[in-house]
Amino acid sequence: MGVLYNQIADQLQALILEGVYRDGDRLPGVRILGRQFGVSISTVLQAHQTLEARGYLEARERSGYFVRLPARDIPEPRMPRHRSRPVPVTAREMTLDLCADEQKQMVPLATAIPHPDYLPLRQIQQSTLWAARRGLETLDYAFPGKESFRRQIAQRMAAIGVPVTPDDILATNGAQEAIILALRAVTEPGDIVAVESPSFPGILQALEVVGLRVIEIPTHPSEGISLDGLQLALEQWPLKACVAVPNHSNPMGARMSDERKKQLVSMLAAAGVPLIEDDIYGDLAHNGQRPRPAKAFDRADNVIYCSSFSKTVSPGLRLGWMIPGRHMASARQHKYFVNLATSSIPQLAVAHFLEQGGYDRYLRAARQHYREATERMRSAVARSFPEGTAVSRPQGGFVLWVELPDGVSGTALYQRARAENINVAPGLMFSTTRKFENCLRLNGGNPWTERLETAVFRLGALAQEAVVSD
Amino acid sequence: MGVLYNQIADQLQALILEGVYRDGDRLPGVRILGRQFGVSISTVLQAHQTLEARGYLEARERSGYFVRLPARDIPEPRMPRHRSRPVPVTAREMTLDLCADEQKQMVPLATAIPHPDYLPLRQIQQSTLWAARRGLETLDYAFPGKESFRRQIAQRMAAIGVPVTPDDILATNGAQEAIILALRAVTEPGDIVAVESPSFPGILQALEVVGLRVIEIPTHPSEGISLDGLQLALEQWPLKACVAVPNHSNPMGARMSDERKKQLVSMLAAAGVPLIEDDIYGDLAHNGQRPRPAKAFDRADNVIYCSSFSKTVSPGLRLGWMIPGRHMASARQHKYFVNLATSSIPQLAVAHFLEQGGYDRYLRAARQHYREATERMRSAVARSFPEGTAVSRPQGGFVLWVELPDGVSGTALYQRARAENINVAPGLMFSTTRKFENCLRLNGGNPWTERLETAVFRLGALAQEAVVSD
Repeated sequence: MGVLYNQIADQLQALILEGVYRDGDRLPGVRILGRQFGVSISTVLQAHQTLEARGYLEARERSGYFVRLPARDIPEPRMPRHRSRPVPVTAREMTLDLCADEQKQMVPLATAIPHPDYLPLRQIQQSTLWAARRGLETLDYAFPGKESFRRQIAQRMAAIGVPVTPDDILATNGAQEAIILALRAVTEPGDIVAVESPSFPGILQALEVVGLRVIEIPTHPSEGISLDGLQLALEQWPLKACVAVPNHSNPMGARMSDERKKQLVSMLAAAGVPLIEDDIYGDLAHNGQRPRPAKAFDRADNVIYCSSFSKTVSPGLRLGWMIPGRHMASARQHKYFVNLATSSIPQLAVAHFLEQGGYDRYLRAARQHYREATERMRSAVARSFPEGTAVSRPQGGFVLWVELPDGVSGTALYQRARAENINVAPGLMFSTTRKFENCLRLNGGNPWTERLETAVFRLGALAQEAVVSD
Repeated sequence: MGVLYNQIADQLQALILEGVYRDGDRLPGVRILGRQFGVSISTVLQAHQTLEARGYLEARERSGYFVRLPARDIPEPRMPRHRSRPVPVTAREMTLDLCADEQKQMVPLATAIPHPDYLPLRQIQQSTLWAARRGLETLDYAFPGKESFRRQIAQRMAAIGVPVTPDDILATNGAQEAIILALRAVTEPGDIVAVESPSFPGILQALEVVGLRVIEIPTHPSEGISLDGLQLALEQWPLKACVAVPNHSNPMGARMSDERKKQLVSMLAAAGVPLIEDDIYGDLAHNGQRPRPAKAFDRADNVIYCSSFSKTVSPGLRLGWMIPGRHMASARQHKYFVNLATSSIPQLAVAHFLEQGGYDRYLRAARQHYREATERMRSAVARSFPEGTAVSRPQGGFVLWVELPDGVSGTALYQRARAENINVAPGLMFSTTRKFENCLRLNGGNPWTERLETAVFRLGALAQEAVVSD
């Protein structure tokens, strides 16, 4: 899908991977390729630049483009195989250190915050100016959310297979708050909740806030949460909820197929265990096709949908929403108790931005960028990290999950990298146990600069040293 | 203090209360009074209008101003005398109904939300436009708060006796969130916390969110929380915190003297029990003199200060702050866990508004308005409610606490009033027990209209009926 030059780039990449063009081959000239594909020269050039970004081509001055295969075809991480027992969630404060470090001008590979270059700055500024002129609407108290915001969200939800009205929507301070409100609606402290493993640290923090115990379900790097693993947990433990990110999960970037989403939803409905769905990366599919959320397959009002604009429009707006279904009364009450309402101005600004169509235009560019950026980062890791490293192949979003060779400590690598002003997220953040000790998560969404390339190669060298000294 | 015409009004009011002018007396003409007080005729006229608003004068066409004493000198409510035991806080959802009702075009006497006429709309709009043009600053993620906002807050805090740096301040989504973060920092679920009685319902909700037990300390309608009562509770129970509103408490409007604040702070420090201070009404002193918060007397880093702009600049901004002192690490972590950060745009806008001096100009007008509006409401209640009714005499803010004659149910009155589209807050919301069953809280900050006057007189008539049928 996507624009023309991407289609050409995809076809060329396929030819390279199939061995039609081999490592070191010079590609035919742009005029020849243009005729071959029936496109203009400038489209061919754009396709070349795209493949260069992805790490498959190298431009040599006055000589043209040469195939440069990644050092080796780096595998995806394995599906973790573990049986867990429910444990309380505690001591998640490490994530806060990473965040603080971010502010200290390190190379920002640790947090899953979108890079400012890829936020719709100008458009949201226009919409904020519009909102600021609304007068009283900006100052009054927006509980359960501004009507204009909830109406826009209802329209977008309908377009992805979730027909709801504005009254079904509750505005929140980001998806994190929505997940906490959902957990409070369906659990009591001490209850057991299933999560993906590795898991987005924010979900573990939410469980800690509510005082819950967690059971971690192995999660496949491209197919998502293990349905067999979840079934086993449902049989063994009195689960009160399952929290999952079916679209482009963090840290793996997995996307569940519609078939597997249906199975997940019906399995949990049959067990009477609510699914809390976090869909914040749903709009960032690399192939340009917005996948349906699990909520679209929810016939039993058993899925609480949570999302936000923090990975797309702006993390600083702190604007999310939830569809609590039959738990609306409870979610509204908790929202009111914890902070009464969500700030009015961001809601008015985003409602205007959505209404003007700016969001969809922005998304087309963002998806394209994140697709290229993560491929480039993946390729740089493949070339620089030691034999035995695996890297996820995300289908959306902008984070990469790196599995280091057995015995190499992600925590030690994290600490060594910090000493050199490179900030990465160690694997132990993504679980309550140390089962991802040999892993790292990298933010792959930054613009590619020399500083960034140097940092990734330096990380690879540090990992190599760790293997040697092992 | 305040402006000149208020000083004249105060002097005239004193003369009336001392019996120099009696009920029905015609006041001397404005020229005579002007010479007497050494002020202009227009100042005298403004003073007359002020006293008319307060319910002490009546203008008769072509005849001048006549003294009209309130029907009787309505007393202030008694200090509640009760001994409480710690109880869990549950079932606080009633407050949410009141809030929902507000949206249905009832006469809005139930919630403590400032009336839009008295918000600094134009100024905050200018500051929001300024903020919207900041570009990237508006979109990035503001943890633990925008530096410009925290710097302005630090300056204001220093001016009221609390010298802090921007690093000592954490931005929150209103004071409600700040109180919850403070409670999480110093308590565990099941712990016992002391609160004022009657208590602001939001504080009871905060206790419910954190899973705490409450002990209610009798609170004097003008002097604030009973120090003897608190001392007794400290001796009897293992308290983990005390939450109080020393300046213009809600619902009573009490202001503790500096001496009593000192005693409160040192008593709690000696017991090793943190004070969580809610100072949201501190800027709305009716006499124009901003009282110090209890935090100004805190030598032991034992007071966690919480405040917001929801009662002044706008409830819809959802912008507050806290000074957690030695609990900063814990408060920051909890803030990060529950919703990561507070929205950036409101912080930038309010920082600009404060920097421009707009806030102080606005406060002068707002204090004056709330002083007159609450006096007028007090006077209307005195004239229309049955014998045996008492009304608080708030020293700041805009709520009034009405104690009905013994045996008259505030809950029944609340329900009858609702049926006639008048929304009031029944006394049972202000406690975990039914000890304020014969009370009501009224929002006295609305502009005085015929509709409002009719509603208050109708409330009085309903209360009269309740006495008769008793």
